Amino acid sequence: MSHPTPFETTFDVRFCETDALGHVGNTVLVQWFEAARDPIFSFFTPELDINNWPLILASYKVDFHQQLYYGKPVTIKTYISRIGGSSFDVHQQVWQNEQHCATGLTTLVHFDFATQRSAPISDEVKAEMARHLLEQ
Amino acid sequence: MSHPTPFETTFDVRFCETDALGHVGNTVLVQWFEAARDPIFSFFTPELDINNWPLILASYKVDFHQQLYYGKPVTIKTYISRIGGSSFDVHQQVWQNEQHCATGLTTLVHFDFATQRSAPISDEVKAEMARHLLEQ
Amino acid sequence: MSHPTPFETTFDVRFCETDALGHVGNTVLVQWFEAARDPIFSFFTPELDINNWPLILASYKVDFHQQLYYGKPVTIKTYISRIGGSSFDVHQQVWQNEQHCATGLTTLVHFDFATQRSAPISDEVKAEMARHLLEQ
Amino acid sequence: MSHPTPFETTFDVRFCETDALGHVGNTVLVQWFEAARDPIFSFFTPELDINNWPLILASYKVDFHQQLYYGKPVTIKTYISRIGGSSFDVHQQVWQNEQHCATGLTTLVHFDFATQRSAPISDEVKAEMARHLLEQ
Repeated sequence: MSHPTPFETTFDVRFCETDALGHVGNTVLVQWFEAARDPIFSFFTPELDINNWPLILASYKVDFHQQLYYGKPVTIKTYISRIGGSSFDVHQQVWQNEQHCATGLTTLVHFDFATQRSAPISDEVKAEMARHLLEQ
Repeated sequence: MSHPTPFETTFDVRFCETDALGHVGNTVLVQWFEAARDPIFSFFTPELDINNWPLILASYKVDFHQQLYYGKPVTIKTYISRIGGSSFDVHQQVWQNEQHCATGLTTLVHFDFATQRSAPISDEVKAEMARHLLEQ
Repeated sequence: MSHPTPFETTFDVRFCETDALGHVGNTVLVQWFEAARDPIFSFFTPELDINNWPLILASYKVDFHQQLYYGKPVTIKTYISRIGGSSFDVHQQVWQNEQHCATGLTTLVHFDFATQRSAPISDEVKAEMARHLLEQ
Repeated sequence: MSHPTPFETTFDVRFCETDALGHVGNTVLVQWFEAARDPIFSFFTPELDINNWPLILASYKVDFHQQLYYGKPVTIKTYISRIGGSSFDVHQQVWQNEQHCATGLTTLVHFDFATQRSAPISDEVKAEMARHLLEQ
């Protein structure tokens, strides 16, 4: 059985990302997850070209398992969890202090802004995605 | 058949809430939804007392239907969609230009920080919630 | 002696705008100030048209006098404090609980994106600004 | 003549940090500057302990020289620019593509929350600061 490789992105929690309860505010995680999807964006636009942006976000869901704190780095592990004809799902985990603290699931659609329609994902990109596919 | 009353919160889109694609960034909506849950927070803490905060967020999900833009106000409609023993769900909608642009579903848990356990929702609060209960 | 009229913008503090010290994080104020400059943006672009944005921000400064808290609305008072040939200054105050809690000073430049140069402020706009001019 | 060593913090621009003008929103820089002051916070609280936070922010000023973009990392260079009895100034620069794009100046006050008064900066911390002192 194969083990897919996640993309890993590590950063320090910013003081302004905490809230009055003393830990990371729940609204911050979608910002981290979006930032950690840069490697996936670059499947479609290697130069991260905002003038030819190829993706639309259809939905996201975040489950919170453990509090997150300022003062220790966090690591986001990013996998693909579904490859469809023109859409796909990204599964992401937040880790801090070797604990899995939150899970994100995001559905993205490959989109052609010229025709304003969803567009098929190429076989080349599908092959790239398959290397990071988390079987569930 | 009864019609539940949503809480309605209206605000202007902030320029800094747009992103390089020219519309509201997807990470902003959970901030709006959280702000629009203030009336629900006040069921549990009428003074919105951050030193006795009674709720934990277990998960949120947002579905995006239409782009949102700077320059026009948005209205968030907030309903209760499930009342459990110690947890409940909040259903929220973002409206702009008379279009329903996004939907949020958030699960919150009534929590006792002293004992570090979930706590039952009182009958009084359940009765308050029932007035805003969206039957599905 | 005349009394200039400020623009007044009132909003509730968002929970996510607090930080772990229990009050509003210092990075939030420039977001509030930017939002409260919408009436000034509309001097230049009445439709708040982001595709023909006429202003560049040259600098901002914020002085913090009192802590700001979640649970009470804040009001931003926005004045013009300098009218130059192509640039101008905006003086802004944050009030909460009838206390003046912070002061912002922002320098903006009227800019022509077609020629990529600063552009003179019209007499019409200068006359509008003069009604909100805080003499110092 | 001595050359002070700045603290250097590098991170990728987050997509959500752009705005509808296609570049980094001006409100983001104070978030970056705050994050890049972590090494200075740790002079006062080596564990970055939010329950014993020793500093209050008195003011910040940011000057914008060049636009900043998504897709390239930014580096924040952080210097001390003034050491007073209980307060000090932090001078920070944002660099992207080998260009100096913005400058920040922040005044912080060493504060004793127990007595609710400003507190002298110890000689030990002053000596640490002196190694990063930008002479102007």
